[in-house]
Amino acid sequence: MNNPREDTSALRVDGGRLWSRLEALGEIGAVAGPNGERGCARLALTDSDRDGRDLVVGWMHDLGLAVTIDAVGNVVATRQGSDATAAPVMIGSHIDTVRTGGRFDGNLGVLAGLEVIETLEQYGIATRHPVSVAFFTDEEGARFQPDMLGSLVYVGGMALEDALDVRATDDGARLGDELARIGYAGPTPCPAAAAPHAYVELHIEQGPVLEDEGVTVGAVTGVQGISWTELTIRGQSAHAGTTPMRLRHDAGYVAAAINAGIRAIAREMGGTQVATVGRCEFSPNLVNVIPATVLMTVDLRNTDEALLQKSESSFHTLCDRMASEEGVTIERRSLARFEPVEFDPAMIDLVETTARRLGHSTRRMPSGAGHDAQMLARVCPTSMIFVPSVDGLSHNIAEYTHPADITAGADVLLQVVLAKAEQH
Amino acid sequence: MNNPREDTSALRVDGGRLWSRLEALGEIGAVAGPNGERGCARLALTDSDRDGRDLVVGWMHDLGLAVTIDAVGNVVATRQGSDATAAPVMIGSHIDTVRTGGRFDGNLGVLAGLEVIETLEQYGIATRHPVSVAFFTDEEGARFQPDMLGSLVYVGGMALEDALDVRATDDGARLGDELARIGYAGPTPCPAAAAPHAYVELHIEQGPVLEDEGVTVGAVTGVQGISWTELTIRGQSAHAGTTPMRLRHDAGYVAAAINAGIRAIAREMGGTQVATVGRCEFSPNLVNVIPATVLMTVDLRNTDEALLQKSESSFHTLCDRMASEEGVTIERRSLARFEPVEFDPAMIDLVETTARRLGHSTRRMPSGAGHDAQMLARVCPTSMIFVPSVDGLSHNIAEYTHPADITAGADVLLQVVLAKAEQH
Repeated sequence: MNNPREDTSALRVDGGRLWSRLEALGEIGAVAGPNGERGCARLALTDSDRDGRDLVVGWMHDLGLAVTIDAVGNVVATRQGSDATAAPVMIGSHIDTVRTGGRFDGNLGVLAGLEVIETLEQYGIATRHPVSVAFFTDEEGARFQPDMLGSLVYVGGMALEDALDVRATDDGARLGDELARIGYAGPTPCPAAAAPHAYVELHIEQGPVLEDEGVTVGAVTGVQGISWTELTIRGQSAHAGTTPMRLRHDAGYVAAAINAGIRAIAREMGGTQVATVGRCEFSPNLVNVIPATVLMTVDLRNTDEALLQKSESSFHTLCDRMASEEGVTIERRSLARFEPVEFDPAMIDLVETTARRLGHSTRRMPSGAGHDAQMLARVCPTSMIFVPSVDGLSHNIAEYTHPADITAGADVLLQVVLAKAEQH
Repeated sequence: MNNPREDTSALRVDGGRLWSRLEALGEIGAVAGPNGERGCARLALTDSDRDGRDLVVGWMHDLGLAVTIDAVGNVVATRQGSDATAAPVMIGSHIDTVRTGGRFDGNLGVLAGLEVIETLEQYGIATRHPVSVAFFTDEEGARFQPDMLGSLVYVGGMALEDALDVRATDDGARLGDELARIGYAGPTPCPAAAAPHAYVELHIEQGPVLEDEGVTVGAVTGVQGISWTELTIRGQSAHAGTTPMRLRHDAGYVAAAINAGIRAIAREMGGTQVATVGRCEFSPNLVNVIPATVLMTVDLRNTDEALLQKSESSFHTLCDRMASEEGVTIERRSLARFEPVEFDPAMIDLVETTARRLGHSTRRMPSGAGHDAQMLARVCPTSMIFVPSVDGLSHNIAEYTHPADITAGADVLLQVVLAKAEQH
């Protein structure tokens, strides 16, 4: 395989082979929708996640890769390069999903990485740098918070011990115990001993922009800053019929006013600002009892750190005003806080020029969602490649990306990796 | 016991004996609060409800009463009168509770009824009419809807077969099956074959009015009309980070806007109008997913039927507007609808004059809560006696009424029953 000067510019992936792997992995934890949609529920470190990991690790071994599992369950499979001292070009993403997830979110980046390596193997292409494929633990944050936990620990952004002590939001299980239970508490140290040469992640857009504009490839310029807050609102439960409106301390009403209020804040700010209440739980949750307690979450995002802080400040003011008006207490707990991230300009250029060379329409765009790439961007040149999501849907079992777009994205990934893997 | 002309005007209950029974029944399904409060969770037709029923039925047998159990689980215990053709004066209420209920709501009316009969027994007082004590199935509606189900079927307001087919909101169990399971699917026909001579219910106010005004006894003039609606809001789940605000179909936001909107409707209408969202469930209920579906309930009450209809109309307009604005669908299902009820003027006078004769401060007032009395009012002269609730709390484990007020209410009940039981 010592052919580093061979012209690999015409090399293409096998889109059908990649699609088959997406379908096979999607069968694990599969959930069916009312209209025949095929989604996935593989929450981090559940039995389904273990089964998905086992399948992918099996494919990694089939390709003859050196597979390591680190102390927080991140899995890295590496194909040797011709220069024994060179750091790997890493392709990565995640294979955990939300409870009503799709087959593409995360999974595409990992399986496209395997497809890139299988293509290199198939055509006997040697590279100077090693090429590795990684999947990171608990990217979604649907079961353990913060999200992007595995890649955060990988780059040294969170202490391993703290990560292992995180408790699941559903059953209270400890992350470290769940890792051991499913057999993915590995021996490789985490954070990683050395940074990759570069990191590239192919991902579905998870939003409507590419489809709306008829563009095939997004060259991702960075990631929105994310602020997640959990609120515990404590009022006074009382009889719904006999308590005059003016004497109420209704935790449910306050939750509603905050939900409506952050919508107004986002609408007023405009730009990239978004605001979402995804979780909301009333207690005691009975038709004729004024709610005593509500647990809710608020998700704020913006590409600009100053604007994100402004939205947080408006949200906090809203909470304080509602607590005072209704006579309730509101406890705020930060679940996750990430500043906006800007990717490496040269890497963004490389994605854009590569996609154009392959004949695809392109667009520069920020990511509205968090990705493992934003963690890796702390330690090495990083970029992402977006492909369109039908109807902009993600975190939804109807999530879909057309096979032609999947193949286009994987071809761009292959060519970007080849370019980076030949660098000195 | 043939002493119908004996002067019974000085007869009083044994308040300590009544208090002991309240405490003993409160131990069944007891739940403790963080500050030592002692509440109750005896949802209708659960094992705890069965245990509570067994305890009360045991006391009924101890008093030598003739106990009947009807086809919907209502229990009636009767003490003979001297006139074999006279219909009973019925004392009644319920012993089921909400999930975070207290020891007094409902239980007081039933146990005060037993105390009245034990007092008559103790002093050998005969009455012309029989005196009966009833507890009705599923008054709270916390597990099976509509609320006041047992008394509704008792007076012929709902078909028995329909009632037996009602499904529990928690575990989906069928009411008829649960009745049989706990041994309270009785042989006595329901609806009842004959109406009582009169019906009297002693109840805690469950609101703050009596305490605020320093009044001991409320002479209840009637019951607010009640309108319960379940909403199923269906939007579109999508990624919280990548979906622009203008493209959202957020079922959670619509639920919040409706919650805040009915508060505004009630505030604008004023008077006795109240409006409550007690139940609200997001799905999939994850921090970073725009909610696809919300199930919520809306509870509207007013003492005036025309105003209650006006509040319903405003609420429906609000739903239609929100569905259109956000691009969601809203399915409305009526869970319960009762018109306002006016009690018998002579019975209201009797409660008021009796309480004054016994030296208690009184106030005429409507009930903000629904009660079995409103069902019995369809078939016989009916009234209610209210005693104060500390801090106006009910449907709350901190629910409390001072022993002196309990005794005052039971004495009024005794004297009202004696007056009605001598009528021709």
